[in-house]
Amino acid sequence: MPAAADWMGKARSAPHDGAGHALSAQGRSHASRLDRWALAQIGASLADPAIRLALWDGTAAGPPPSDAAVSVRIADRRTLFALVADTEIAFGDGYSDGRVQVDGDLIHLLEAAYRAAGPTPWWRRPWWVNTRRRARENVHAHYDLGNAFYRRWLDDQLVYTCAYYPNPDMTLEEAQVAKLDLLCRKLDLKPGHRVVEAGCGWGALALHMARHYGVTVKAYNVSREQIRHARERAVAEGLADRVAFIEDDYRSITGTFDRFASIGMLEHVGVAQYAALGKVIDRVLDPVHGRGLLHFIGRNQAAPLSRWITKRIFPGAYAPTLAEACDGVLAPWRWSVLDVENLRLHYARTLEAWLQRFESAEADVAATCSGRFARAWRLYLAGSLVAFTSGSLQLFQVSFAREQDNAIPWTRGALLQSAPGGTRA
Amino acid sequence: MPAAADWMGKARSAPHDGAGHALSAQGRSHASRLDRWALAQIGASLADPAIRLALWDGTAAGPPPSDAAVSVRIADRRTLFALVADTEIAFGDGYSDGRVQVDGDLIHLLEAAYRAAGPTPWWRRPWWVNTRRRARENVHAHYDLGNAFYRRWLDDQLVYTCAYYPNPDMTLEEAQVAKLDLLCRKLDLKPGHRVVEAGCGWGALALHMARHYGVTVKAYNVSREQIRHARERAVAEGLADRVAFIEDDYRSITGTFDRFASIGMLEHVGVAQYAALGKVIDRVLDPVHGRGLLHFIGRNQAAPLSRWITKRIFPGAYAPTLAEACDGVLAPWRWSVLDVENLRLHYARTLEAWLQRFESAEADVAATCSGRFARAWRLYLAGSLVAFTSGSLQLFQVSFAREQDNAIPWTRGALLQSAPGGTRA
Repeated sequence: MPAAADWMGKARSAPHDGAGHALSAQGRSHASRLDRWALAQIGASLADPAIRLALWDGTAAGPPPSDAAVSVRIADRRTLFALVADTEIAFGDGYSDGRVQVDGDLIHLLEAAYRAAGPTPWWRRPWWVNTRRRARENVHAHYDLGNAFYRRWLDDQLVYTCAYYPNPDMTLEEAQVAKLDLLCRKLDLKPGHRVVEAGCGWGALALHMARHYGVTVKAYNVSREQIRHARERAVAEGLADRVAFIEDDYRSITGTFDRFASIGMLEHVGVAQYAALGKVIDRVLDPVHGRGLLHFIGRNQAAPLSRWITKRIFPGAYAPTLAEACDGVLAPWRWSVLDVENLRLHYARTLEAWLQRFESAEADVAATCSGRFARAWRLYLAGSLVAFTSGSLQLFQVSFAREQDNAIPWTRGALLQSAPGGTRA
Repeated sequence: MPAAADWMGKARSAPHDGAGHALSAQGRSHASRLDRWALAQIGASLADPAIRLALWDGTAAGPPPSDAAVSVRIADRRTLFALVADTEIAFGDGYSDGRVQVDGDLIHLLEAAYRAAGPTPWWRRPWWVNTRRRARENVHAHYDLGNAFYRRWLDDQLVYTCAYYPNPDMTLEEAQVAKLDLLCRKLDLKPGHRVVEAGCGWGALALHMARHYGVTVKAYNVSREQIRHARERAVAEGLADRVAFIEDDYRSITGTFDRFASIGMLEHVGVAQYAALGKVIDRVLDPVHGRGLLHFIGRNQAAPLSRWITKRIFPGAYAPTLAEACDGVLAPWRWSVLDVENLRLHYARTLEAWLQRFESAEADVAATCSGRFARAWRLYLAGSLVAFTSGSLQLFQVSFAREQDNAIPWTRGALLQSAPGGTRA
């Protein structure tokens, strides 16, 4: 696990000596009894003897800095009580703008926070509706941050979804190619197939399919930046006659196809639109042998994503349970689920690679974006990593076929054969 | 597909000349206009030009007998109108007691009936509660028909669940061993593991695990006949010290185990008891590395089983959707679904093998059971075969682990390795 100390050191707004001196202009007053009570509350909820918590005046709980795996410094009283009242938002925003400073192993801290939070006890189903307009705004907010930003820490093909590491020592680049190939094998692509992709990112899968499997692809995405990049790649690689990149919503897909793929889009669809997505899939896929694959971040038990994540990083996002995805998207059209694979630990490995690269690129990121943005992004990557290692999030790949299609693969054998573009699973 | 004619010929209560003469003492009066209307209704709903329908007086719809793939003769007016009013029950009971006679390809007829019925448009969730007592009665009604009966048409180990044919030309015996091995690989068995099985049939899986994987097994079943047979096998094969067969309900399981397996029992649990089953699984499995597998007949969209099947063959049975099983059994305890495989076509192949053997054993069956029983059983096997080939039923294998268990297999590679007891997948 990468430690957070070095990078955070640069993001600090004021120096500190590591022993608990005043950090900010606010909150200079000495900690009161109430402040110490609040500090103790936070310490008790984390329940981890390796975490040191310190206030602005040096008041501290937990081991001395030299013995702590991670030290958290809370810069002022407002932040302290915000942490007690609304931990997720207060920690996320406080970490981003420097009012909560973390020295040492951020991952260790987040793991303790996940353990402390436990399962969400009760909640309401997401009520929002991701209309076309809202969907475009949500996507724009995250994916149109500039391709240069993503190039700093994604692989060379800009694949921004869970990689697949058949060999755990693979590079991120190799693992993303292995994932693209795994998807093609699961889709059972044959030369001449017409494929439609909903939410194509920077186009890596669509191009991989056309290049290695002799298929034609129509790939949809509402992110202008991504579509532009994907089209340039298609031209540069001589695939523009076989891959069409279309800047539009999945609800606008037209045509008839042999295969449907959606990789990392379902999280942005919203439960209220699952039936609409299912209807599109049913409408555009061949009525006899049409097949498809959904690849999405999911849950074991229905729960919202972290409130900070949906507020600051992924507006409108939701990770469904396998049952919610099957019931919402597939069952109304009687799709038959052929195969489900959970790649949770592969997403943890992927996030580890992204986080390492992100940290290595810290100087570049800090030069072009605000420190607040860079810290928020780092927390998002580290928090996601811990969400997958702790089992709070899952990664499901769900393959499906028409109910009466008896031409489906007889066994999984074909899934593990070597394939044109990649490596043996 | 085996044709039904020969066997049915022997089950007939009265001879007929194949051209539509009177068949029974009842309904001798000539067909009225209303009778002909009812006949036309049935013909229109089947919508298959290769099916001939004939009444007791020779009135017929469809092609002449020589051109028909299958001919159906309805023996009296009561049966005719029962078929219009309540097709499933009337056909099942009429076929069983000879009031509906089928010459030719029964499978062809059932396929047309499945197409005609289409998806169930609306229904209520199963309301019944399979209490311990009712569960025992339900199981007794089906599984305690005498081991000699099942020995006539199952494989040599009496495995009464979907087989796995990695090679489609395998014998039923080979395919059942391949299935047992597939289950062991999916359960990732290690020497010394403590395994519990809920609903163990005649004990083949429990014995296979102990013999080839060095584990100990506690196997539960409420069928007295099956437990008796399983215990005899354990003693005969020198495995009685490693496999305990217990005649009791799954709700009575005690102990702590590394692995939980339930093959073909969920269909008998009833949706109302899914939470109870999930609670048992959670209670008895190791809290860190406990894992399990559910193997069950399922649906793409929630619907009851054929009413005739639940009335005459499997009282209290229900085939859930994947979502119902996940939501009901696994989600409340935050089990993580690792892997789902749909073996629908393997169950069709298995049923083909059972049906062939059943037909070959017709003389033996007819000698010991009533003709009515034998015909009902034959219809059940043929109807199930068509349910799987038509996609009306699915066969799901669902593997699951504790949410925070990071010792789960890294990839599926191990699932396809050759294993001690069986064949390479």
